[in-house]
Amino acid sequence: MLGLMQQQSLLISSLIEFSDQHHGDGEVVSRRVEGDIHRYTWSDVARRSRQVANALDAQKLPEGTRIATLAWNGYRHLELYFGVSGSGRVLHTMNPRLHPEQLAWIANHAEDQVLCFDMTFLPLVQAVHSHCKTITQFVALCDADKLPEGTGIPNLVSYEAWMGQQPSTYDWPQLDENTACSLCYTSGTTGNPKGALYSHRSTVLHAYAAALPDSMCISARDSILPVVPMFHVNAWGIPYSAAMAGAKLVFPGPALDGKSVYELIEAEGVTFAAGVPTVWQMLLGHMAPAGLKFSTLNRTVIGGSACPPAMIDAFRQNYNVDVLHAWGMTELSPLGTVCTLKNKHLSLPAEQQMKLRMKQGRCIFGIDMKIVDAEGQALPHDGKSAGDLLVKGPWVIASYYKQEGGNPLVDGWFPTGDVATIDTDGFMQITDRSKDVIKSGGEWISSIDVENIAMAHPAVAMAACIGMRHPKWDERPIVCVVKKPGADVTREALLAFYEGKTAKWQIPDDVVFVDAIPLGGTGKMLKTRLREQLADYVLPGL
Amino acid sequence: MLGLMQQQSLLISSLIEFSDQHHGDGEVVSRRVEGDIHRYTWSDVARRSRQVANALDAQKLPEGTRIATLAWNGYRHLELYFGVSGSGRVLHTMNPRLHPEQLAWIANHAEDQVLCFDMTFLPLVQAVHSHCKTITQFVALCDADKLPEGTGIPNLVSYEAWMGQQPSTYDWPQLDENTACSLCYTSGTTGNPKGALYSHRSTVLHAYAAALPDSMCISARDSILPVVPMFHVNAWGIPYSAAMAGAKLVFPGPALDGKSVYELIEAEGVTFAAGVPTVWQMLLGHMAPAGLKFSTLNRTVIGGSACPPAMIDAFRQNYNVDVLHAWGMTELSPLGTVCTLKNKHLSLPAEQQMKLRMKQGRCIFGIDMKIVDAEGQALPHDGKSAGDLLVKGPWVIASYYKQEGGNPLVDGWFPTGDVATIDTDGFMQITDRSKDVIKSGGEWISSIDVENIAMAHPAVAMAACIGMRHPKWDERPIVCVVKKPGADVTREALLAFYEGKTAKWQIPDDVVFVDAIPLGGTGKMLKTRLREQLADYVLPGL
Ligand SMILES: Nc1ncnc2c1ncn2[C@@H]1O[C@H](COP(=O)(O)O)[C@@H](O)[C@H]1O
Repeated sequence: MLGLMQQQSLLISSLIEFSDQHHGDGEVVSRRVEGDIHRYTWSDVARRSRQVANALDAQKLPEGTRIATLAWNGYRHLELYFGVSGSGRVLHTMNPRLHPEQLAWIANHAEDQVLCFDMTFLPLVQAVHSHCKTITQFVALCDADKLPEGTGIPNLVSYEAWMGQQPSTYDWPQLDENTACSLCYTSGTTGNPKGALYSHRSTVLHAYAAALPDSMCISARDSILPVVPMFHVNAWGIPYSAAMAGAKLVFPGPALDGKSVYELIEAEGVTFAAGVPTVWQMLLGHMAPAGLKFSTLNRTVIGGSACPPAMIDAFRQNYNVDVLHAWGMTELSPLGTVCTLKNKHLSLPAEQQMKLRMKQGRCIFGIDMKIVDAEGQALPHDGKSAGDLLVKGPWVIASYYKQEGGNPLVDGWFPTGDVATIDTDGFMQITDRSKDVIKSGGEWISSIDVENIAMAHPAVAMAACIGMRHPKWDERPIVCVVKKPGADVTREALLAFYEGKTAKWQIPDDVVFVDAIPLGGTGKMLKTRLREQLADYVLPGL
Repeated sequence: MLGLMQQQSLLISSLIEFSDQHHGDGEVVSRRVEGDIHRYTWSDVARRSRQVANALDAQKLPEGTRIATLAWNGYRHLELYFGVSGSGRVLHTMNPRLHPEQLAWIANHAEDQVLCFDMTFLPLVQAVHSHCKTITQFVALCDADKLPEGTGIPNLVSYEAWMGQQPSTYDWPQLDENTACSLCYTSGTTGNPKGALYSHRSTVLHAYAAALPDSMCISARDSILPVVPMFHVNAWGIPYSAAMAGAKLVFPGPALDGKSVYELIEAEGVTFAAGVPTVWQMLLGHMAPAGLKFSTLNRTVIGGSACPPAMIDAFRQNYNVDVLHAWGMTELSPLGTVCTLKNKHLSLPAEQQMKLRMKQGRCIFGIDMKIVDAEGQALPHDGKSAGDLLVKGPWVIASYYKQEGGNPLVDGWFPTGDVATIDTDGFMQITDRSKDVIKSGGEWISSIDVENIAMAHPAVAMAACIGMRHPKWDERPIVCVVKKPGADVTREALLAFYEGKTAKWQIPDDVVFVDAIPLGGTGKMLKTRLREQLADYVLPGL
């Protein structure tokens, strides 16, 4: 027997309609690429999103068309979030920090038709456009009179010319809630980058869960600064949850340095900010010497990489800001766990609370998790047994776009590539990583790519890339190299060999020459063993 | 193009599994009918819910079977919430305050198969059981050794005997999320009581929305006392949202007097309580003379009837408790709006904030609302124009159970029978009621029923029932009567005439004899006119 409730799809267009109707004068403030501050309201976002939808309709782009962006956090990017997805197209947010070759590969894989980009990325687009075979329209996110001549990019139009003349009324389509709404590639796996194709349903459910008091606790009383980029899993879904609550949004644009972020927080009464540890490192590095304090900030969500305990301490003790440690991934939309205390923990002594706060946190409702041993057997939630972390839930992927990499699930569970413990209270803590990737400043570096480049050098017999702890970047790669008998190469020559073959920040920080790399029974490199051998190693410059 | 996310039904069983897994030692505390305090954990709730599911399976009751309850807020009722709905049956919570005849009518209409009841209601069940044609199993919510002999009720078993021996493992079925999960009749409409048949999807979505910071803000740091009965729209959905957050639950049982409620709040560290104005009137009435204060309570949600401004003031100023005024109805699962301030209101002077707090509040995401004039034309959201309030959303009914009363929707919108204004910030305020019903102490009284009984008296030519403001009960009915020419009846005789024909509290407080009742052009009684004529009327005893 079915219930007799109204059938209404969970749609992204409902989010923007809601904030238009109920929070029309709520502010959205952006630092622009040009450096100035732009401010308008949720009603303006809604109106201009409808113009974006009309612009896409005018170009006769069918439902499902991928519209790519290369853009910072800003108001035009936000309009694309709602206009593209709301009208039934798929917003493909690309990561401008990738190597141009990788970007072209991804754009071709996604078969993007339109690319919208911030002027910062004009040189990048100039470098890649001729390799992007499916893109027929380039849109520069700028005013009509700011569009440079002679860029060499075909079919280039300014955003304002493209959408500014469109009608501002639009009937959002009543889509099936499982319709795809956005696409985000991750390079946090082995092999080619893989796309997570989110649906309206998964996005709206995630928006509810992410706004809960035990998650990011997003309300109409918040002024929210997502420092985490909108090209990183939709800025952790904050744009959607903020629209759901009618919260004020504050976008930092490209200015992620400590001074700019601090000034924006103070100027816009930011209550809540979100980002990876590296940006907070820069912020605290700016504030501490100058003795600066926050007037309104009361909490930050820190995730993407493990948050150093000293950072949690600094925020809490010196700045009275609560740090919510969170864990998630592209394949999870991204939120899986947030570290908020339970009632019974509120009376614990500070150092015991601190132990908890260092964990990645508890599942938000919707996500299920378990840890398993090498045989796939579930391990107890005793806070000691560490095992492979698996998750499932309505905002976890079922497969990657175009089935890349085959079926990722194991009995319906998604293996995260993280190794973790779970305690009796459900607090999960990442202890290790089983996937062979390195996370530096919130961005992935593929160990295999680093190794392959080294191996292409005539003097190298074998190469193993491992991540080393770094106070600013969380991890930095180094490469351990066994030379071919009789051949020779210097550290400097090998590092120079990487130039142009990968993004600059993906080049290893050091080369360590070794006699041999420990191998396991099946011939696989035993990186844990290697890491043990390098226990006393210190990264250059530290 | 569809997204590639995991398909997972939104199910009530996931809620109890979640709190079992992640909040296993979280407390659930109940004052029992016997007066003592019972305490156990979310894991116990989960285990015993599974036993309930097994007990229902053992009786071979198919999916969709209606299982009725006549019970206070308590742990066994909570187990039925999860065990009955989770296993695919429909939990039908009946209102024990209804007249026995009405109860029997409802049980027959719902075709309930099982009735679970608190011992308080034994006399009631003894009175009605022979009229309930479909019930084949009666379950007394008590220990096996507490079951009285010779009740005259056939197939009567104690709850503990019924479920206590069942296995405590159970595989919750993976139902379609639109499957019916619970049923609640409202008498807040004209005509027969009508059933709202909720689905798993509507219930889980409501649980998310109700727990948001702009709604009830339910977290794992809360200890929650739902004073609002579990037979009133599932205690406003609090059991579900509490399970979603792993919050502590505190149940008052039958003891709703000020002293009992106060003691429970203090003893159990309650942070948040929810109920209709009448119960808070009793609570404050107990506390004020004794100079009592709250140690932990920080907010209450008050709804079901308009909250008197003096009550909001008293809670805030004398007790430092935030009052969240809320509006909803059975047909809305029930939450539609909650009155939480926006960022820009936080700096307003106290009296302006107070004006806002008196409104019923803003939509929670998922609910859409509009106000229309007599022709159905949308009215502006200017805070002045008052019109019929219509709503839609995934936890609003599409129709009543068994299509009772036909299609209630107007162009997909549900007409609430309330008259309201909406201001530019989306704050809705109820100004009147277009439906002909009276709400007394959170319970509905049908004007038509009151009138029909009067009209059945040989001396009565015409009768009109209207609601009068009452400081404790919010409204009380009086009946205005035109006598037949030459006939006579006294106030006392007419009131005596009601005895036995309706529940005691539904008998009008007074009879006012009038020469004529104002009628409109179509012969309809003009109750607004009548109310104007009675402007100086004072209820007896005030
Ligand atoms: N709080 C955290 N602590 C440690 N590692 C994290 C944390 N959050 C995310 N990660 C890592 O980042 C991965 C997801 O990366 P991405 O898909 O780029 O968001 C996870 O699988 C983890 O390896």
